[in-house]
Amino acid sequence: MSADAAPSTQGPVLVVGAGLVGASIGLSLATRGVEVLLSDPSPTTLALAQEVGAGRAVTPEVVPALVVVSAPPDVCARLVVEQLAAHPDAIVTDVASVKASIAQAVLAAGADASRYVGSHPMAGSERSGPTAARADLFVGRPWVISATEQSAVAAVRAVRALAVDLGATPIDMDATAHDDAVALVSHMPQVVASLVAARLREAPEGALALAGQGLRDVTRIAASDPSMWAAILGANATQVRDVLSAVRTDLDTVLAGFDRVVDAGDHGGLASVAAAIEAGNAGVARVPGKHGGAHRDYAVVTVLVPDAPGELARLLADVGRAGVNLEDLQMEHAPSNPLGLAALSVLPKARAQLEAALDAASWKVAG
Amino acid sequence: MSADAAPSTQGPVLVVGAGLVGASIGLSLATRGVEVLLSDPSPTTLALAQEVGAGRAVTPEVVPALVVVSAPPDVCARLVVEQLAAHPDAIVTDVASVKASIAQAVLAAGADASRYVGSHPMAGSERSGPTAARADLFVGRPWVISATEQSAVAAVRAVRALAVDLGATPIDMDATAHDDAVALVSHMPQVVASLVAARLREAPEGALALAGQGLRDVTRIAASDPSMWAAILGANATQVRDVLSAVRTDLDTVLAGFDRVVDAGDHGGLASVAAAIEAGNAGVARVPGKHGGAHRDYAVVTVLVPDAPGELARLLADVGRAGVNLEDLQMEHAPSNPLGLAALSVLPKARAQLEAALDAASWKVAG
Repeated sequence: MSADAAPSTQGPVLVVGAGLVGASIGLSLATRGVEVLLSDPSPTTLALAQEVGAGRAVTPEVVPALVVVSAPPDVCARLVVEQLAAHPDAIVTDVASVKASIAQAVLAAGADASRYVGSHPMAGSERSGPTAARADLFVGRPWVISATEQSAVAAVRAVRALAVDLGATPIDMDATAHDDAVALVSHMPQVVASLVAARLREAPEGALALAGQGLRDVTRIAASDPSMWAAILGANATQVRDVLSAVRTDLDTVLAGFDRVVDAGDHGGLASVAAAIEAGNAGVARVPGKHGGAHRDYAVVTVLVPDAPGELARLLADVGRAGVNLEDLQMEHAPSNPLGLAALSVLPKARAQLEAALDAASWKVAG
Repeated sequence: MSADAAPSTQGPVLVVGAGLVGASIGLSLATRGVEVLLSDPSPTTLALAQEVGAGRAVTPEVVPALVVVSAPPDVCARLVVEQLAAHPDAIVTDVASVKASIAQAVLAAGADASRYVGSHPMAGSERSGPTAARADLFVGRPWVISATEQSAVAAVRAVRALAVDLGATPIDMDATAHDDAVALVSHMPQVVASLVAARLREAPEGALALAGQGLRDVTRIAASDPSMWAAILGANATQVRDVLSAVRTDLDTVLAGFDRVVDAGDHGGLASVAAAIEAGNAGVARVPGKHGGAHRDYAVVTVLVPDAPGELARLLADVGRAGVNLEDLQMEHAPSNPLGLAALSVLPKARAQLEAALDAASWKVAG
């Protein structure tokens, strides 16, 4: 893994904004021996980031080789422009989750944009702040590199090196393509998951007792920070509006189908409902699964796991002894029952072998 | 577990419809020594169900004590009425995923409804047909029992006994409350997940490369059978339309906020976006997690797992040796990287102990 090799990134690196992402970048670089300086408008955040080993507070005499602006999208462009001016020899990047509006503002400000390359590591956590920082936050994640027309090759190379040093996979993508992509695969699903979850506020307790894994999956990301998301969605408002409008058009088609069924007793209206489910089939088949490839059709073997320390480990040890490689594992907990169900995904050809081995080891294999 | 006790269900049991659910009921009862008869309009399905041990084909002289109709909601009521007439001493239930329209049709048909009790096991599989049958499909799942005003106590008792014999947790709920509940926690989320997934059909490959676990979770159930879902949604059309209309109203509010931002440059429009995310926070907090209780705030420890047989088992063995009980486990696969990330959920007080143990065992703990 590249994260274990000597870093290509030249220090000192100045990280502007010491929250979860900034502090994780600092911590990871510092762990690899790169000199890291930190700044943050909050003295508390700055002190905590130093405490977790993300770097030391920046001082006026420091001349950074690379500046990483890790701030919300609505303040990011201003900070990038300030840093380009303050450090006339430094390469400057930002790691905000929108790219076009920031690049436009940087170019419009008349800054030396040859030294600016936007970027976006596709990593995060349900936790926030420097105390949640992790040196390995970016390992194995895509890290979008969005050069502008004015970006110098050396600047692009430095930002790619940063991504690789942190264990991420650099992906070159222009700012508009990036913003369109995240509107589709991240921002729209975030809003829609929140809309689904919002419907549950007034639900009777009894209704929620019937909730299954499907509802848990659809609504998991609805537990996200409203003000952080307002800033992200606001900075990508045009793209997100377009995608959400398309969802509304599709929803209206489905609702018109239900109107035919309910108001006219015409079950032909169900054709538009079935068509929507079919369209969803086609879309979900394109979501990358393991290793960035297309979704594979794994065989799923579900096993009952008693709720006690070590039981899941014992199961997985038996799976390992069977010589079967697990492609995926999901735990599902049954309501009102002290049992977990472990859904083991394996290649279809390995199913019989796994089931026989689990049977032999007295595991209860469920449906 | 009750599934190991002697069954309370009195045979012979006639299962009408030998697909996944019907054959699983038959298989489970047969395994417990109850006599099971099967019928199905498809001779192939019937033969396969017998082959997997779900019972034997029904013959005219059989007098069942209990009839379980396991058929799509749009044919279920007719079959229930037929069975009540054909077997004047039998208790009849059905296991369709909507309840009110079936109960109404049975009562309207003038059948002997004292012997009818609707029910709905909240269990299924992404596979279908009798070859996917599992004796333990229902273990730990809720099984809704919807008695009508005419249902006899003995009939309710027999259907509850069936649920308990199959390892499920019976939940008494009237048909309308059931249909409202599944519209909210199952049918609406199914349609919305399909609408999100449908937007991915035309996405550039590059956009999909940025997809993360959030998108995978939101769209997982979109890989469902369109004709099966058209029948389910059609049978619960009024309730589903109401919930989907409420979602559309909320979506329109969010879109109006985006219009203010995009068309008028007024970022005050983001207030309605933030409010929608906040409402989602409140809703998702009510989704039951483990053991049917409220969602708990677990600490999540993420560990890098090499993609090789036995590695996950080795990790879980180390977790077990640390004396820490796993509350949940999710595997996430990094795109373009031969590594998995195992997200281990534990009680917050166990986090430090677990991290120290994993560190000591040389696991890479990620963010």
